[in-house]
Amino acid sequence: MITEKLGRRIRLLRNNAGMSQEKFALSIDMDRSYYASVESGKRNISINNIEKIANGLNITLEELFKGL
Amino acid sequence: MITEKLGRRIRLLRNNAGMSQEKFALSIDMDRSYYASVESGKRNISINNIEKIANGLNITLEELFKGL
Repeated sequence: MITEKLGRRIRLLRNNAGMSQEKFALSIDMDRSYYASVESGKRNISINNIEKIANGLNITLEELFKGL
Repeated sequence: MITEKLGRRIRLLRNNAGMSQEKFALSIDMDRSYYASVESGKRNISINNIEKIANGLNITLEELFKGL
Protein backbone atom coordinates (compact mmCIF):
# COMPACT_ATOMS: atom_id res chain seq x y z
CA MET A 1 0.00 0.00 0.00
CA ILE A 2 1.10 3.52 -0.79
CA THR A 3 0.68 4.68 2.82
CA GLU A 4 3.21 2.04 3.85
CA LYS A 5 5.66 2.85 1.07
CA LEU A 6 5.45 6.55 1.87
CA GLY A 7 5.87 5.89 5.59
CA ARG A 8 9.01 3.84 4.96
CA ARG A 9 10.40 6.53 2.68
CA ILE A 10 9.76 9.26 5.26
CA ARG A 11 11.34 7.15 8.01
CA LEU A 12 14.45 6.60 5.89
CA LEU A 13 14.83 10.28 5.08
CA ARG A 14 14.25 11.29 8.70
CA ASN A 15 16.83 8.77 9.89
CA ASN A 16 19.29 10.02 7.26
CA ALA A 17 18.76 13.50 8.67
CA GLY A 18 19.78 12.14 12.07
CA MET A 19 16.62 13.10 13.92
CA SER A 20 14.47 11.07 16.29
CA GLN A 21 10.73 10.79 15.55
CA GLU A 22 10.05 12.95 18.57
CA LYS A 23 12.49 15.68 17.65
CA PHE A 24 11.33 15.75 14.04
CA ALA A 25 7.61 15.81 14.88
CA LEU A 26 8.26 18.65 17.30
CA SER A 27 10.25 20.57 14.68
CA ILE A 28 7.31 20.54 12.26
CA ASP A 29 4.70 21.09 14.96
CA MET A 30 3.00 17.76 14.31
CA ASP A 31 1.51 15.54 16.99
CA ARG A 32 4.11 12.91 17.79
CA SER A 33 1.79 9.91 17.85
CA TYR A 34 0.14 11.02 14.61
CA TYR A 35 3.58 11.34 13.02
CA ALA A 36 4.60 7.89 14.27
CA SER A 37 1.49 6.39 12.67
CA VAL A 38 2.37 8.08 9.36
CA GLU A 39 5.79 6.39 9.38
CA SER A 40 4.03 3.12 10.15
CA GLY A 41 1.85 3.54 7.06
CA LYS A 42 -1.35 3.71 9.04
CA ARG A 43 -2.56 7.13 7.91
CA ASN A 44 -4.14 8.27 4.68
CA ILE A 45 -2.14 11.46 5.05
CA SER A 46 -3.21 14.61 3.21
CA ILE A 47 -1.12 16.74 0.87
CA ASN A 48 -0.88 19.60 3.38
CA ASN A 49 0.70 17.31 5.96
CA ILE A 50 2.92 15.65 3.36
CA GLU A 51 4.20 19.11 2.41
CA LYS A 52 4.84 19.91 6.07
CA ILE A 53 7.02 16.80 6.33
CA ALA A 54 8.91 17.59 3.09
CA ASN A 55 9.57 21.10 4.36
CA GLY A 56 10.83 19.73 7.67
CA LEU A 57 13.20 17.45 5.78
CA ASN A 58 14.28 20.36 3.57
CA ILE A 59 13.44 18.48 0.40
CA THR A 60 11.00 18.92 -2.48
CA LEU A 61 7.90 16.80 -2.87
CA GLU A 62 9.49 15.35 -6.00
CA GLU A 63 12.42 14.18 -3.88
CA LEU A 64 10.13 12.84 -1.16
CA PHE A 65 8.28 10.68 -3.72
CA LYS A 66 11.44 9.51 -5.47
CA GLY A 67 11.06 5.86 -6.38
CA LEU A 68 7.44 5.70 -5.21
CA MET B 1 -0.61 26.80 -1.74
CA ILE B 2 0.38 23.23 -2.45
CA THR B 3 -3.22 22.17 -3.16
CA GLU B 4 -3.32 24.75 -5.96
CA LYS B 5 0.06 23.79 -7.38
CA LEU B 6 -0.89 20.12 -7.35
CA GLY B 7 -4.27 20.86 -8.93
CA ARG B 8 -2.63 22.80 -11.76
CA ARG B 9 -0.11 20.01 -12.31
CA ILE B 10 -2.84 17.37 -12.44
CA ARG B 11 -4.89 19.48 -14.86
CA LEU B 12 -1.89 19.90 -17.14
CA LEU B 13 -1.12 16.19 -17.18
CA ARG B 14 -4.76 15.26 -17.74
CA ASN B 15 -5.00 17.72 -20.61
CA ASN B 16 -1.79 16.35 -22.09
CA ALA B 17 -3.38 12.92 -21.96
CA GLY B 18 -6.27 14.31 -24.03
CA MET B 19 -9.03 13.49 -21.56
CA SER B 20 -11.89 15.63 -20.31
CA GLN B 21 -12.36 16.02 -16.55
CA GLU B 22 -15.50 13.96 -16.81
CA LYS B 23 -13.93 11.15 -18.77
CA PHE B 24 -10.88 11.03 -16.53
CA ALA B 25 -12.85 11.10 -13.26
CA LEU B 26 -15.03 8.29 -14.58
CA SER B 27 -11.98 6.25 -15.61
CA ILE B 28 -10.61 6.33 -12.07
CA ASP B 29 -13.99 5.91 -10.42
CA MET B 30 -13.82 9.28 -8.67
CA ASP B 31 -16.75 11.61 -8.14
CA ARG B 32 -16.61 14.18 -10.93
CA SER B 33 -17.30 17.25 -8.82
CA TYR B 34 -14.78 16.11 -6.21
CA TYR B 35 -12.21 15.65 -8.96
CA ALA B 36 -12.97 19.10 -10.41
CA SER B 37 -12.37 20.65 -6.98
CA VAL B 38 -9.01 18.86 -6.74
CA GLU B 39 -7.90 20.43 -10.03
CA SER B 40 -9.08 23.79 -8.69
CA GLY B 41 -6.84 23.36 -5.64
CA LYS B 42 -9.73 23.36 -3.21
CA ARG B 43 -9.15 19.94 -1.65
CA ASN B 44 -6.62 18.78 0.89
CA ILE B 45 -6.43 15.53 -1.03
CA SER B 46 -5.11 12.38 0.62
CA ILE B 47 -2.31 10.13 -0.57
CA ASN B 48 -4.71 7.32 -1.52
CA ASN B 49 -6.60 9.62 -3.88
CA ILE B 50 -3.38 11.14 -5.21
CA GLU B 51 -2.19 7.63 -6.04
CA LYS B 52 -5.48 6.89 -7.78
CA ILE B 53 -4.95 9.94 -10.00
CA ALA B 54 -1.31 9.01 -10.75
CA ASN B 55 -2.42 5.51 -11.71
CA GLY B 56 -5.12 6.94 -13.97
CA LEU B 57 -2.51 9.08 -15.68
CA ASN B 58 -0.17 6.09 -15.94
CA ILE B 59 2.64 7.92 -14.19
CA THR B 60 4.59 7.49 -10.96
CA LEU B 61 4.05 9.70 -7.93
CA GLU B 62 7.57 11.02 -8.49
CA GLU B 63 6.53 12.14 -11.97
CA LEU B 64 3.28 13.61 -10.68
CA PHE B 65 5.19 15.77 -8.19
CA LYS B 66 7.86 16.81 -10.65
CA GLY B 67 8.73 20.44 -10.11
CA LEU B 68 6.48 20.77 -7.04
